[in-house]
Amino acid sequence: MFEISKTDLAGRIGTLYTNHGKIETPAYVPVIHPVKQTIPSKKIQEIGFDLVITNAYITMNNYGDMATKKGIHKIINFDGAIMTDSGGYQVLEYGDVKVLPPEMANFEKEILTDFAIPLDKPTGYGLPLKKAEAFVKHTLKVSKQTLESSENNGQIWIGPIQGGEHFDLVAKSTKSLVKIGFKMLALGSPVEFMESYEYRLLAQMIVVAKKNMPHSVPLHLFGAGHPLTIPFAVALGCDTFDSASYMLYAKQQRYITDDGTRYLSDISYFPCNCEVCSKYIPDELRQLESTEKVNQLAIHNLHAIKLEVDKTKQAIHEGRLWEYVMKKARAHPKLFEMIDVMTSNHEFLGIGTPKFKEKALFLFDKDDQFRPEVQLFHSIVRKFKSKKKKVLVIKEFNTKPGYLSHQYVTLRKKFKDFESIQVCQYNPQLGLIPIEISDFFPAAHHETARVDFDPKEFPTFEKTWIVFFENNKFSEVCYDKNDEFLKYFVRKLPKQVRRKSLV
Amino acid sequence: MFEISKTDLAGRIGTLYTNHGKIETPAYVPVIHPVKQTIPSKKIQEIGFDLVITNAYITMNNYGDMATKKGIHKIINFDGAIMTDSGGYQVLEYGDVKVLPPEMANFEKEILTDFAIPLDKPTGYGLPLKKAEAFVKHTLKVSKQTLESSENNGQIWIGPIQGGEHFDLVAKSTKSLVKIGFKMLALGSPVEFMESYEYRLLAQMIVVAKKNMPHSVPLHLFGAGHPLTIPFAVALGCDTFDSASYMLYAKQQRYITDDGTRYLSDISYFPCNCEVCSKYIPDELRQLESTEKVNQLAIHNLHAIKLEVDKTKQAIHEGRLWEYVMKKARAHPKLFEMIDVMTSNHEFLGIGTPKFKEKALFLFDKDDQFRPEVQLFHSIVRKFKSKKKKVLVIKEFNTKPGYLSHQYVTLRKKFKDFESIQVCQYNPQLGLIPIEISDFFPAAHHETARVDFDPKEFPTFEKTWIVFFENNKFSEVCYDKNDEFLKYFVRKLPKQVRRKSLV
Repeated sequence: MFEISKTDLAGRIGTLYTNHGKIETPAYVPVIHPVKQTIPSKKIQEIGFDLVITNAYITMNNYGDMATKKGIHKIINFDGAIMTDSGGYQVLEYGDVKVLPPEMANFEKEILTDFAIPLDKPTGYGLPLKKAEAFVKHTLKVSKQTLESSENNGQIWIGPIQGGEHFDLVAKSTKSLVKIGFKMLALGSPVEFMESYEYRLLAQMIVVAKKNMPHSVPLHLFGAGHPLTIPFAVALGCDTFDSASYMLYAKQQRYITDDGTRYLSDISYFPCNCEVCSKYIPDELRQLESTEKVNQLAIHNLHAIKLEVDKTKQAIHEGRLWEYVMKKARAHPKLFEMIDVMTSNHEFLGIGTPKFKEKALFLFDKDDQFRPEVQLFHSIVRKFKSKKKKVLVIKEFNTKPGYLSHQYVTLRKKFKDFESIQVCQYNPQLGLIPIEISDFFPAAHHETARVDFDPKEFPTFEKTWIVFFENNKFSEVCYDKNDEFLKYFVRKLPKQVRRKSLV
Repeated sequence: MFEISKTDLAGRIGTLYTNHGKIETPAYVPVIHPVKQTIPSKKIQEIGFDLVITNAYITMNNYGDMATKKGIHKIINFDGAIMTDSGGYQVLEYGDVKVLPPEMANFEKEILTDFAIPLDKPTGYGLPLKKAEAFVKHTLKVSKQTLESSENNGQIWIGPIQGGEHFDLVAKSTKSLVKIGFKMLALGSPVEFMESYEYRLLAQMIVVAKKNMPHSVPLHLFGAGHPLTIPFAVALGCDTFDSASYMLYAKQQRYITDDGTRYLSDISYFPCNCEVCSKYIPDELRQLESTEKVNQLAIHNLHAIKLEVDKTKQAIHEGRLWEYVMKKARAHPKLFEMIDVMTSNHEFLGIGTPKFKEKALFLFDKDDQFRPEVQLFHSIVRKFKSKKKKVLVIKEFNTKPGYLSHQYVTLRKKFKDFESIQVCQYNPQLGLIPIEISDFFPAAHHETARVDFDPKEFPTFEKTWIVFFENNKFSEVCYDKNDEFLKYFVRKLPKQVRRKSLV
C-alpha cells in the first residue's frame, strides 16, 4: 500500500497505492467542497494533484442516498484518489454532529472513498487534559470499532491521532492506533496551532507521533497545507497534508507566496511564474470581477502550494532537505523557532538520512552541527584510536581530503618525527577530523562559510574533543596559539597534556 | 534620466528614461549576441526584459558600415532599449582589441545605442596593483575623452569603474568618473570574483563604489546576473546587471533555480512554474533534440532570473529587503559570507531605508541587531533622558506598545512609587525600550523569534545599555534575577547602582 523510494531526514518520497491509482508523496491534498466547489476538480487534477479530500458528513447531509448510489467520485467529479473526512472537523467547530460513528463508517464505505477516516473527536488546542483524555479515549474506541467492521475492499482506513498539546496523549493515541491495526495514520488538529503561529508546538507534536509509529506507516497531517509549514512537516515525516487554504485565502483576497501570505492589494510585482501570474499584472488581477478574481487567486494559490511541494521533493532528491528547511525557517520568526525542534531531534532525523550523499553539505552556522550527517561523523571520530603520543590540530585545508593538500605535504616536511604525530584537521561543525579519515563523508564533502564562529556555541565539538582525548593518551598537543577557536578547547584539556606552538 | 520611486537599504525601484522608452529598475539586462543569438530578442522582450545588452565590438567586426546604416536596433531586432559593451570584455579575455577608443565611441554613437560604454581596460581579479593602476588610469583617460566628444543626443554614456580587489583604486576610479560628469556608472569585472565564489569581495567592491558616488546616479554591475547574487547586488545599490548566464548555463545543460544552478540531469521535480517547466516534466525536457533543449533551458533560465528580480522588487516594495537577502544568504556558504558586509555597513544601508514601515520587522538572530531600522531605534534610545532615579527593566510583553499591555497595568499596581520609576522593556535586537517610546517604530512593530539568545552576541545592546546608564543617573535597577540575558548586562553596571529583584 505504501512504498518508500527515497528518504532524507524523516522525510521521504513514496507511493501510495489506492483503488483510484497511485499517488506520489509527499502530497498536498486540496479540500474539495462537495457542494460549493468553484474551482473544478478537473482543473485541480490538471495542476497536478492526484489526491483530494472532501467531507463525507456534508456529502451525507446534502446528497443522502444519491451519494451511495453514485459514489463520491461522481459526486465531486474526480477520477483520482479521494480521501473523506468524516465530520470530525465539524465536531471541533460546532461541538457535535447528528450522525453516529458506525453509520458514518458505513456511508464512507458505500460511497467508495479511497481513504476513509472514522468519525473522531478532535482535541484541537487549549483543551484541558481531562477533557482531551476523554476525547482521545472516545476516538480510539470509535476507530477500533470502525476498523473491525471494515471490509477488505482496497479502501484505506486512516487512524486519527488526537491529543493536541498534551504530548503524552498524542503518544498514547498513536501507539494505540498502530496496535489496533491502522495502516495509515493522520495527526489531528494542527489548524489551531497554526492560527496562533505555534509552529514549534506543531513540530513537537509531529515528532511525538512519528516516534511512536513504524517508519513504514504513512502519516497524514490534517489542515496544514501552507508553503511555510510544508517543508518542515515533510522533514519531520508527514507524507500527506490537506488544507482548504488555497480557497479560504483567495476569498480574503490573499495571495500565497513561499514566504507567507500577502493581501493582493499589497502586491506590486508577482513573485511567481504560474499561469495566473503570467497572464495578469497585479493591477489587472485586482480589477477582475469578484468571483473570477477569487477563482484566479485560488488557482495561483494551488500553483504556489504545488511548487512548494515540488521544491521540497527536489530537496529530498538532492539530499539537502536540512538546508532547505533551515533557509525556509527565515520566512517568519515563529517558523524560525522550529529549528529548535530540528536540532534537538537529530537522532530521530538521522534514521532516514542517507549515510552518503553525492552533493557536498553546505554548513552555515552553529545549528548545522546538529545535521544528522555531521553528528554521524562525530560518532565515528569518538571511536577513533591512535597509537601516537603527539597530536597536531590544524584548521582544515581548502583541498579535501586533507592528505592530498599541499599544506599537508608542507607539514610532513616540517616535522622530523612526522610519523609519530597524529594529525587532525578541524572544522567547527564537523569537529576533529583525523587525517586518516579525512576522505570519509562528509569530511571531504562539505562547504563551510568562512565567518567567525564562537567556540562556546559548539557543544558537539567539545564533546568529541573530550572523548577523543580520553580515548587516546596524547602527551602533547601542537596547535596554532593564535587560533581563537581552538584555544577555547585546548584550555579544557588535562594539565598533563603539553601544549606546543605550531608556527 | 533616472528617477527613484522607492528605496530600502541601498536598493531602489527607479525608472531610466532612454531614447527607446523607459526601463524600470532594478533590471536584469540579458546579453544578446549580435550574430549567434538563438533566443529571439522578441521572445526576450515578451518574458519581460525592456533593456538588453549587446557587443559593439563584435557588431563592428561582423557588420561594419551596415551596422551604422541600419542601427543596432534593427541589427538585433529589438525595439526596446539597448546597451552596448565596447570590447572591454574582449580586452579582459584576449588581452587586446583591434580598434581605438575614439573609433569605438564614434561607432557606438552612430549605431544609436541607448547606453554606450567607452572602450575600457578591465582589471578583473588578481591583477597586481601596479598593473591595475595603469588600467584604471587608461580607462579614466579614455572615458574622459569619450564623454567630452559625445553629443547631447539622448544617448547615455556609462562610466566604467575599474580596480577589482584593489578597493582604493575602485574608490578613486568612481570619484573620477563622477567628476568627469558621467550620469551613470558601471562596476567592472565581477565575473571573476563570482567564478571563484568570492561573493564577499564582490559585495565589498560594490559598497566601495557606492560610497563614492551620489545616490542619484544609477549603477550598472557588469556580468553578475545570477539569482544568487541579484538580491545582494540590489540591496547594496546596483540598479542594472547584465549577464549571458541564461545561455551559457543552458549550453552546459544547467538549470537556474533560486538556490543556485543544477544540472538538468539532477532534476527530478522542476522547482519552477514557468512556461517551460509547466509544459514538460524533467524527463521530457531531457529527451528534447539538442538545440531545442538548450533553447528551452535558456528560456527557463530567463524566467528564473526575471522571477528573482521581481521577488527582489516586491521585497523593496514591502520594505523587507533585509529579510529577503538574509534568507537568500543561506543558499550557499560563500553567499552567507556577504552577511558580514551587510552588518558592517549598516550606516550606509540606513541611508535608503525608510524611517517608518507598514509591515512589522521580522527579527531572527544576532545579525538583525544591525538592521538599519533597529540601529536607528538604538540611536534614539541613546539620547533618551529620564529624571527618575529608579529603573525597572523587563522583557518586552506580547502586547505592543508595552503601555497598553495588561502586564504593564499589573506592574503599575505592584509598585506604590510607580510614578518615580522609569520602566524599560527590552528586546535582544532592539535593546532597551523606554515605555514612553514603546510605540515608536519599530518597538511596537516587530516579531521576534522566541529562542535563547546569547547576550555576548549583542554588542549593540551593550553599547546602548552603557550609554543609557551614563545619560541617566539611576541609583537603582530592578530586574528579574532569573533573566539570564539581562544578568550579563547588569553585571556591567557601576557598583553604586543598587540591584533589586523583581518578583
